[in-house]
Amino acid sequence: MIFDPVTDKPQEECGVFGLYSPVPNDLAWLTYLGLFALQHRGQEAAGMCVSDGDKFHVEKDLGLVTQVFDERRLDSVRLPNARVSIGHVRYSTTGSNLRFNSQPLTTRTNKGILGLAHNGNFVNALEVRTEMLHEGALFATTNDSEVMLNLIARESQMDLVAATAAAMKRLRGGYACVLMSRTGLIGFRDPHGVRPLVIGQREDGAWALASEPCALYAVGARLIRDVQPGELVYFDRDGLHSLMVEARQPTPCSFEWIYFARSDSKIDGVDTHESRIRMGMQLAREKPVDADVVVPVPDSGMGAAIGYARESGIPFDYGLYKNPYAGRTFIAPSQEARELKVKMKLSPTSAVRGKRVVLIDDSIVRGTTSRQIVNLLREAGATEVHFRVSSPPITHPCFYGIDTAARKELVASTHSVEEIRELIGADTLAFISEPGLRQAIGGKGMCGACFTGHYPAGTPLLNDVDKLALEV
Amino acid sequence: MIFDPVTDKPQEECGVFGLYSPVPNDLAWLTYLGLFALQHRGQEAAGMCVSDGDKFHVEKDLGLVTQVFDERRLDSVRLPNARVSIGHVRYSTTGSNLRFNSQPLTTRTNKGILGLAHNGNFVNALEVRTEMLHEGALFATTNDSEVMLNLIARESQMDLVAATAAAMKRLRGGYACVLMSRTGLIGFRDPHGVRPLVIGQREDGAWALASEPCALYAVGARLIRDVQPGELVYFDRDGLHSLMVEARQPTPCSFEWIYFARSDSKIDGVDTHESRIRMGMQLAREKPVDADVVVPVPDSGMGAAIGYARESGIPFDYGLYKNPYAGRTFIAPSQEARELKVKMKLSPTSAVRGKRVVLIDDSIVRGTTSRQIVNLLREAGATEVHFRVSSPPITHPCFYGIDTAARKELVASTHSVEEIRELIGADTLAFISEPGLRQAIGGKGMCGACFTGHYPAGTPLLNDVDKLALEV
Amino acid sequence: MIFDPVTDKPQEECGVFGLYSPVPNDLAWLTYLGLFALQHRGQEAAGMCVSDGDKFHVEKDLGLVTQVFDERRLDSVRLPNARVSIGHVRYSTTGSNLRFNSQPLTTRTNKGILGLAHNGNFVNALEVRTEMLHEGALFATTNDSEVMLNLIARESQMDLVAATAAAMKRLRGGYACVLMSRTGLIGFRDPHGVRPLVIGQREDGAWALASEPCALYAVGARLIRDVQPGELVYFDRDGLHSLMVEARQPTPCSFEWIYFARSDSKIDGVDTHESRIRMGMQLAREKPVDADVVVPVPDSGMGAAIGYARESGIPFDYGLYKNPYAGRTFIAPSQEARELKVKMKLSPTSAVRGKRVVLIDDSIVRGTTSRQIVNLLREAGATEVHFRVSSPPITHPCFYGIDTAARKELVASTHSVEEIRELIGADTLAFISEPGLRQAIGGKGMCGACFTGHYPAGTPLLNDVDKLALEV
Amino acid sequence: MIFDPVTDKPQEECGVFGLYSPVPNDLAWLTYLGLFALQHRGQEAAGMCVSDGDKFHVEKDLGLVTQVFDERRLDSVRLPNARVSIGHVRYSTTGSNLRFNSQPLTTRTNKGILGLAHNGNFVNALEVRTEMLHEGALFATTNDSEVMLNLIARESQMDLVAATAAAMKRLRGGYACVLMSRTGLIGFRDPHGVRPLVIGQREDGAWALASEPCALYAVGARLIRDVQPGELVYFDRDGLHSLMVEARQPTPCSFEWIYFARSDSKIDGVDTHESRIRMGMQLAREKPVDADVVVPVPDSGMGAAIGYARESGIPFDYGLYKNPYAGRTFIAPSQEARELKVKMKLSPTSAVRGKRVVLIDDSIVRGTTSRQIVNLLREAGATEVHFRVSSPPITHPCFYGIDTAARKELVASTHSVEEIRELIGADTLAFISEPGLRQAIGGKGMCGACFTGHYPAGTPLLNDVDKLALEV
Repeated sequence: MIFDPVTDKPQEECGVFGLYSPVPNDLAWLTYLGLFALQHRGQEAAGMCVSDGDKFHVEKDLGLVTQVFDERRLDSVRLPNARVSIGHVRYSTTGSNLRFNSQPLTTRTNKGILGLAHNGNFVNALEVRTEMLHEGALFATTNDSEVMLNLIARESQMDLVAATAAAMKRLRGGYACVLMSRTGLIGFRDPHGVRPLVIGQREDGAWALASEPCALYAVGARLIRDVQPGELVYFDRDGLHSLMVEARQPTPCSFEWIYFARSDSKIDGVDTHESRIRMGMQLAREKPVDADVVVPVPDSGMGAAIGYARESGIPFDYGLYKNPYAGRTFIAPSQEARELKVKMKLSPTSAVRGKRVVLIDDSIVRGTTSRQIVNLLREAGATEVHFRVSSPPITHPCFYGIDTAARKELVASTHSVEEIRELIGADTLAFISEPGLRQAIGGKGMCGACFTGHYPAGTPLLNDVDKLALEV
Repeated sequence: MIFDPVTDKPQEECGVFGLYSPVPNDLAWLTYLGLFALQHRGQEAAGMCVSDGDKFHVEKDLGLVTQVFDERRLDSVRLPNARVSIGHVRYSTTGSNLRFNSQPLTTRTNKGILGLAHNGNFVNALEVRTEMLHEGALFATTNDSEVMLNLIARESQMDLVAATAAAMKRLRGGYACVLMSRTGLIGFRDPHGVRPLVIGQREDGAWALASEPCALYAVGARLIRDVQPGELVYFDRDGLHSLMVEARQPTPCSFEWIYFARSDSKIDGVDTHESRIRMGMQLAREKPVDADVVVPVPDSGMGAAIGYARESGIPFDYGLYKNPYAGRTFIAPSQEARELKVKMKLSPTSAVRGKRVVLIDDSIVRGTTSRQIVNLLREAGATEVHFRVSSPPITHPCFYGIDTAARKELVASTHSVEEIRELIGADTLAFISEPGLRQAIGGKGMCGACFTGHYPAGTPLLNDVDKLALEV
Repeated sequence: MIFDPVTDKPQEECGVFGLYSPVPNDLAWLTYLGLFALQHRGQEAAGMCVSDGDKFHVEKDLGLVTQVFDERRLDSVRLPNARVSIGHVRYSTTGSNLRFNSQPLTTRTNKGILGLAHNGNFVNALEVRTEMLHEGALFATTNDSEVMLNLIARESQMDLVAATAAAMKRLRGGYACVLMSRTGLIGFRDPHGVRPLVIGQREDGAWALASEPCALYAVGARLIRDVQPGELVYFDRDGLHSLMVEARQPTPCSFEWIYFARSDSKIDGVDTHESRIRMGMQLAREKPVDADVVVPVPDSGMGAAIGYARESGIPFDYGLYKNPYAGRTFIAPSQEARELKVKMKLSPTSAVRGKRVVLIDDSIVRGTTSRQIVNLLREAGATEVHFRVSSPPITHPCFYGIDTAARKELVASTHSVEEIRELIGADTLAFISEPGLRQAIGGKGMCGACFTGHYPAGTPLLNDVDKLALEV
Repeated sequence: MIFDPVTDKPQEECGVFGLYSPVPNDLAWLTYLGLFALQHRGQEAAGMCVSDGDKFHVEKDLGLVTQVFDERRLDSVRLPNARVSIGHVRYSTTGSNLRFNSQPLTTRTNKGILGLAHNGNFVNALEVRTEMLHEGALFATTNDSEVMLNLIARESQMDLVAATAAAMKRLRGGYACVLMSRTGLIGFRDPHGVRPLVIGQREDGAWALASEPCALYAVGARLIRDVQPGELVYFDRDGLHSLMVEARQPTPCSFEWIYFARSDSKIDGVDTHESRIRMGMQLAREKPVDADVVVPVPDSGMGAAIGYARESGIPFDYGLYKNPYAGRTFIAPSQEARELKVKMKLSPTSAVRGKRVVLIDDSIVRGTTSRQIVNLLREAGATEVHFRVSSPPITHPCFYGIDTAARKELVASTHSVEEIRELIGADTLAFISEPGLRQAIGGKGMCGACFTGHYPAGTPLLNDVDKLALEV
């Protein structure tokens, strides 16, 4: 997890998207729409590849989808008879030369030109990379996608689908990928299904892959189904094919429902908005409080706040105005930056004046933003502030696509709930229980490694990272 | 009113801000914060002047506050011992050379260098301008501020305050202005108080003027009071002075409460968020309906939706997800642009599926966006859509600072409520009554010219505009 | 004079251009070509106005002509039936807000919309400005053009030509101006003709005004004649009209021939390239030396070097390579900036190795660059360096359009020729004599104020400048 | 050769630069200076790598050196204790995604991170690339440098120097390369020495490699010697080491002396400026003419014109003014673009009026620009134009680093000298002879493939290019 100074939320690393069209289509434009709908999953870089079976265009750069793809640039990847495309948005964090690491990654292999984009992490990428280096491989980037591409290229006797399946077996972790050649589209999801990937189809027959259903709707496709954990799907002139490569106990990432996925998305059969309302209701049952008003931290606490209000009977109100321009780059003297950014973003309304407030947020990472919000409410006249959190305390880093922070920065890994309460200055503080969360999500398996330290898809050997780090 | 193709809302034209500090202060930085808090009042241009009593710096350009003032540009207006500053954000609409019309306007006169920024409109500006042209005056811009400045400069025997008061008497309309010299700050509001202006003060003694209190809070000032209709206030080393120039029956613009002002603002003593909840409650009493869920059009319908739900007992829910990136420039084939933009901005959640929905919005201008939203809800499974609007039907253009559109584009000026209902495809449609709105705002005087055609501060002679239009 | 750290040359302030076409023409495009040909006269800002008799477009900004007018911006001033246009390039120097001072200046007056661009200086502008301020005038800029425009507007009973002539009589100095309304073009030159202005005509009948003939050729016009000192010319449907407003003894600026004007230009009947060759020949006669090779400082010393070689019989050679990319913005640690810039710009060739070099430059302002060039030649193996300058020593500032520097920075105002020689490290140093220069230019009157301190068109009252300075 | 619409000259593809410093040095800054001095060898892209033995930074992009490396970007590659760096400037021509092909290329291999930049061409790159693809290699770019890097990585048992020597033996063509690891710098030149590479050293002991000596001087280094044809040099803590990999008959590219190299450079022991004067003298002896003035096409015809004038006794003059801003991007309606660009760039001075002119240029590629220049001279009053060219007719494409154009576009491959003369409208036309050129260069071996069709370092199998083209 990384710590955005404004939101202090875990940050999703990426969103992926792909299209296969049996008829010529303006895939550059559709991919732009799909990526725009996935923008919340990554704001630092965006890119896409488009092919018509012959030409193979790629554009990518740092910035939002709408910044990277201005009219000129979108035109530069447009192909009148496009058949295949993939796209990627990325939230990235470190390294001086991020530009060279942006996705999709493209390369020429014995299977033709390939483009690959992934969401998530291969926990043994470094070992595989080291082994291949010794065999004479080149690595232009530090991007894990390149390891996957090298594995595919090495299987020079196999076709692309077989080679991709072989590569899946060699790499471990939590991931969802889209891969294209000039003529076909492939999607695959790790054996535990940690990262989401859904399949859709348009009325004209074009197939779509996306991290979330909202991107399907954005291109006029309806949701067909989720790609299954461990499944590889591919699309060609004959339509959709499926290959079950290696299935394990499904443990999709619980944070997709808690915070990441849009509230109009449904992941692995469970609606995000509904699950958030259930989290709020569960929280009200588990951690009730006597109060006058339930207020969400906008926008991510909205669903749980509605649920908490509904279950508790305490009125819901809009107690924190959110400045819609607050996402923009903002100049601030560094020492005041964090405090100012919160203040410029959130501002209490009269709804909290003289009230005992139940404040609902989805998570607490470092707690610094939480403290400021509590403070804002008190200054605005709230008589009591009861903080309720719709996720359990985050005590462990994530290794499956949410950028890792040092464990010591996670306030809940070093402080008790009571200590955190004191730190953030709330009158009471309570988190949803892990079983309560699981039930709100639907009672099925989920990855809660960041709450429990139990990593269903393994952990990396971190020690070697620095030795091999390439700042390119 | 102009019609933003995405929101189809009336568009506020401007926000103004000013500071007078008895001690040296980083006024460029504070003005930046103040303007950022007023960004919702104007997104097309931003500017500020700063003086330390000797130097007088100005920067302005097209763009958002954060775009115009990058680090280099903010530094370029910074003065270590700044004492006075003003700032402006603008929503503008026509003309090929908008850059030259942005505010604050600065000029050198016999009273020294002056900077002026205004919100609103002088309805007789054209007559005064024509008269002065014949007397040998130059007009570098088509901005009404320049007329005010010429009037002030003409009174060469008066001091700045007296000359400004004389100019106020000469110009009619609905406006709020901030005016600065190298050593003093002046604020004034038209005799009817159509446009808002508030006074605040920081703990270090610095005075602030702003269109809304949220900008006071942003610079660490508390709200002292509203500038009164017809009042001129000025600040110098002795503090705050007041001069009542010409007071009439107060008729502040009702749309500040309905839509324009932030929900954390209080205008002329009435809290916006509370008044919106009252509008929703009033609407529920006036226009009840049997339904399953109350859903706001985010974010502007939020307050009224909470009020409607509260009064009616129908559950509130978050039925339309709003993409926070939707404000960005977005490429779209022109023929599909409007429809796509709505779709990329708003997306129904599961909250509306199988439900009878009460959809709450603050206003309907052309109705095109409303139709699309109703359609989105139906596609997402809403069984009934009952549209409720927290403002009366808009039938007349505004001449007091909200850009004028042809009356024929206002759907309510040519269609009955039933015709509009049919147009937008709702099951039922109802607007709040004008008396009901008035009561929700507080029962005091208000300008409702756009609902009634009664213009308290007069109307312009429009016919001459084209003849004199200067495209500069 | 200002001191460009790289060239250490006097800097021309501006170039002006104008077109009047009896038939519809793409005047924006032609003005772009004309300004491009005048780019050497000003690199800091560029602008133009275009009118078709109805619309009146203007664009201007900081930057080179090709930077200010990219395709989008040139299109924004294009009018299909354009009849009149003016343009301006500017070399400017001080002030924090140069953008607001760029030309052409446009304003609306009782004579309609006017655009004005000038080259040169009005020495009594400040007095006139002060007087008009007291009468109630506004000055949006510190640009002298605005004083001229105010004077024109004040004559509300006169037509535009008469009012302009009246304004000419009121202002003193050295200047050349182009002025346009929606339907006519005016050009005028000060009574002494200090700054140049030429008239040309295209085959399609369109008239052109320009600071130099090269801009006429660039738009396919041939040179008709120079505007006479003190003459006002105007163009309307009937063609070219002339009004002799006030003629004095002609004293055109000698630096136009020495350095400013392009070597393909002819000013007041005297060809620049030929006059430079004559300067070199005169210098060879006045200040001969025994040497092996004559080397110009490129490119400005080229003509005089050819002349010196021709008269002396010493072979001409290309001894200093000039990097064509040296004009670009160049990052350099400030302490080394000047030295590096010279070194990155000029580099000795083998032509000077083991040779006694006559180095020809057109002028010496501060002498710092000269010292570095002499040093470069010695390092490259020149055994002797004899510095010859085709202008007399510059001892006084210019008040007619070449930006003024403090007199004490002019090395020749405080040092003897022998002291300068020692300073720059040359074996010998000699300047052309003032009579010799006059003869090379053609024996007619010329302004040599910067050599002699005799100012034919008067001097300003400098003391008041600071008091009124407006940093806008 | 490609045809720049303005100059119609053969275009050099690249310049390379490298530094190895035994003491910590600001290598980013020095590399910037070195690349700036090589800017004439490539204007489309620039890049550099810098390492301090641990960190390894790279930046590259499309644009001039001064555009790519603004202050922020130069800082981003700066390392306080830098020891090794390489840099590259590129003139490139085709492909939609040039950005991804810019150099230096960086990759991680079993020999650590490597950066490579090359000038020239490997004629068998495609065969080697195809072979390696089949073995499972990835190619991220279409850049030949990547083939070289793959070859180096494959030799996993050898050290970097040995592996590089092995790769040299495998690749054929005309090239000069710089290669760096974190701790060492390597330079090598093809066995025929077609492309130049020189070695220099600074007083602080730092070693430099560069395409031309001018880049050595720019960083304060003196020229030590040329890298020999077929030689590999490397630098480490012990200083300079040499390995002769494979030497053949030296045939350095003759166009370096004719046109490419700066006139202050010396290549393989022969001074460019002196050789150009000798070419002019030779041309005067071979192709004399009775005329009044010798005029160069600036700037490339300067040296030969001085030589022609010196030998023939006809006076040299500056007959064509060259607009120093002509290199900038220039808007032009496409149909007039070429003609306008020549006209905006070159303008005749009075030196040609009424004269019989000998016009000296270094080469004729398509002849279109030549025709326009002849035309300009005639319009300016030249009575006769005798065109003399200091290179033989270009009849064949180059395969050693000058971008190839279709042979049919080379006017001399399809027209006789008399036909070309008629085409360009000259009174007489003559080229230097091939033996005359050889003698002017110094009588040693040279590559004159573009005159003779004899390719000393082989030719590529062009047919496969399209099949494998990757538009990335």
